[in-house]
Amino acid sequence: MDLVIRNASEVVTCDGPLEARAEETLGRLPNSVIGVKNGKIAFLGPESSLPASNATIIDARGGFVGPGFVDCHTHVVFAGDRSDEFEQRCQGKTYLEIAAAGGGIARTVSATRKATEDELVALAKPRLGRLLAQGVTTAEVKSGYGLDVRSELAMLQAIRRLSAEQPIELVATFLGLHAVPVEFKQHRTEWIRICIDELLPLIVKSGLATFCDAFVEQSAFTHDEARMLGERARELGIPLRLHVDQLTANGGAQLASELGAVTADHLEQITPDGIAALKRSGTIAVLAPTSTLFAKARPFAPGRALRDAGVPVALCTNCNPGSSNSESVSLAMGLACVENGLTPAEAYLGFTRVGALALRRPELGRITVGGPADLVVFACDSYRALPYHLAMNEVSVTLKAGRVATHTT
Amino acid sequence: MDLVIRNASEVVTCDGPLEARAEETLGRLPNSVIGVKNGKIAFLGPESSLPASNATIIDARGGFVGPGFVDCHTHVVFAGDRSDEFEQRCQGKTYLEIAAAGGGIARTVSATRKATEDELVALAKPRLGRLLAQGVTTAEVKSGYGLDVRSELAMLQAIRRLSAEQPIELVATFLGLHAVPVEFKQHRTEWIRICIDELLPLIVKSGLATFCDAFVEQSAFTHDEARMLGERARELGIPLRLHVDQLTANGGAQLASELGAVTADHLEQITPDGIAALKRSGTIAVLAPTSTLFAKARPFAPGRALRDAGVPVALCTNCNPGSSNSESVSLAMGLACVENGLTPAEAYLGFTRVGALALRRPELGRITVGGPADLVVFACDSYRALPYHLAMNEVSVTLKAGRVATHTT
Repeated sequence: MDLVIRNASEVVTCDGPLEARAEETLGRLPNSVIGVKNGKIAFLGPESSLPASNATIIDARGGFVGPGFVDCHTHVVFAGDRSDEFEQRCQGKTYLEIAAAGGGIARTVSATRKATEDELVALAKPRLGRLLAQGVTTAEVKSGYGLDVRSELAMLQAIRRLSAEQPIELVATFLGLHAVPVEFKQHRTEWIRICIDELLPLIVKSGLATFCDAFVEQSAFTHDEARMLGERARELGIPLRLHVDQLTANGGAQLASELGAVTADHLEQITPDGIAALKRSGTIAVLAPTSTLFAKARPFAPGRALRDAGVPVALCTNCNPGSSNSESVSLAMGLACVENGLTPAEAYLGFTRVGALALRRPELGRITVGGPADLVVFACDSYRALPYHLAMNEVSVTLKAGRVATHTT
Repeated sequence: MDLVIRNASEVVTCDGPLEARAEETLGRLPNSVIGVKNGKIAFLGPESSLPASNATIIDARGGFVGPGFVDCHTHVVFAGDRSDEFEQRCQGKTYLEIAAAGGGIARTVSATRKATEDELVALAKPRLGRLLAQGVTTAEVKSGYGLDVRSELAMLQAIRRLSAEQPIELVATFLGLHAVPVEFKQHRTEWIRICIDELLPLIVKSGLATFCDAFVEQSAFTHDEARMLGERARELGIPLRLHVDQLTANGGAQLASELGAVTADHLEQITPDGIAALKRSGTIAVLAPTSTLFAKARPFAPGRALRDAGVPVALCTNCNPGSSNSESVSLAMGLACVENGLTPAEAYLGFTRVGALALRRPELGRITVGGPADLVVFACDSYRALPYHLAMNEVSVTLKAGRVATHTT
């Protein structure tokens, strides 16, 4: 063994049956130690059965151990500061007034276009550092603040570099259809054509993104436009995700189901028909409760109804400068319990086992012998404490592929 | 000088006129350094005017500096764990069902009574450590989980010891009228008599508490009962605070005003008449948005209407195991902006200048030459980033009375 984690209250493997009650899916093992070798989990069981070795010892001091968190939906690569817009909103300005003065997403796009790839990398690193300190070992990051060919590619290049230059493994998503670029307001179909006919094939060929995505909303893209993306994505073999039903009930979940999207994200306004559609297609619901709070995009998505219908529910921070400026996994989990109606076990699975499935990475978000040693040692003795200790970080050690990446205490 | 803080983006003194717009009250000074001597602020001005000395230098690295936070309402002294009740609530159990099974506040009271004073001190220290890491240099702590003579006194003794044994200065409040103790359900007037005729005079005489307080609510104490406490408190010269209008609109703000309470806390259900009453009496409104979220005690208190009516608004974490299990100052500030309608400047003042006034400590929560060197150096360059960077801790150094108490980066 290279490394052994001992003295844990329990190991929460998240490796129980996925179709069972969440509390069973957690697969909690008391009195267990974890042995790590070559970045993989090599041993999981009672300390008395652990082969002798001179491994590095991590003392969990009675805290529990779980898989590294998977944050399956973020926008952490961007430039510019919008804290003044937050203040203006609090002072009573409307989003339209702020947008008319050059604010909103257009401002982030403008700053991101001006930034060099080096600058984008440098700006994102502290954000990823904060996610890492919260226990995140794999994160998805979207493009969509470039909105021109050069800048979208620069964002994806920055994501690729960031994945190599810091411990969190990144999964890139091409989100050219995030907003209609200012230059294309009068001929939006041209931007859509560029995304679908030029950027998407290039990105697939170069492997710069694992997923493609579109924001389906009155203020963004229509069903037909998303359908064009989805059909081309299928031809090219790149899986689809969709931002749907966030601000208006637009039948977006049904669209995601129709297009065979891996995930349908946001879902504040999803209808019973939409829930049934997700269930039929096996599409994973990704909830972003921090943005529901931050952007006042009420109501909160019906997490309880989704789970009760048998739809897998993943959670994310949706960390971004406009609607969810927070890397707090703990806040997202707490809100998922208090506002989306999930239980602590369901919320925990949303950032582990189900979050990994949302990225089509079934080997992540669980602890199995032979699986990757992406692990978190917590200061508290139970998963229950994570949403209960609202917005506080209980992580004491994060390990990525068997290496200690952060050590808080 | 003993210590100098330089390279700050600005010093936010919170020392502007209190009756002005919050953004003016902030009293922001660019290009300023702070000099500390003997625990007091000895210099505030441009670096070129700073007298030469071989002081310790703290490099703010472009972050801003503000006064130490004052958390004017907490319940951080308690024993026991209620994370399982949080889970049960998320699984659909009602508060009444949980209470019937021995849960709720009665469970915390039971565990607190069983704990020794040493245990209470040891349990509270990490909570205070987390508040300190969030920039809190002064905190109020209430009794009210003892609910018998011995245990209430043990809580107050623990608070006194804690104030000496860790950096945060504590202000104790006697909250015997927190809940009717189980033993007195059939003769509640006897417990009220014990609080008012026995405990209160003893506590005043021994100086074990600075304030007294009562929870005025259908499920707790009536107006008449709180009035008895208020009248006796006035005779004894101990100032009054009140928990009012939290779960039901009970005219509690009017009562607080009538009794000349220093603060009226919670106020989710306050009416326009209640707001006018607070304004008349100069009573400070203390909002606890984290508990409104955590306990689903909607709506959020009308912070905007209170400020617009000229009522000073303080904020608090209300950290406690039942309705607000969080030490996050940042979350409370963010919720105050998003949910209570305050601006970032108003929220910042709620944890500084106005929070200090809620504890009748006008020298705290502001930066003035000659005043105490309770200071926070932030990693970000503006107060706006605190609520905007939702639930994330931007504190890099906390100083209490001129000494570095925590140093995060």
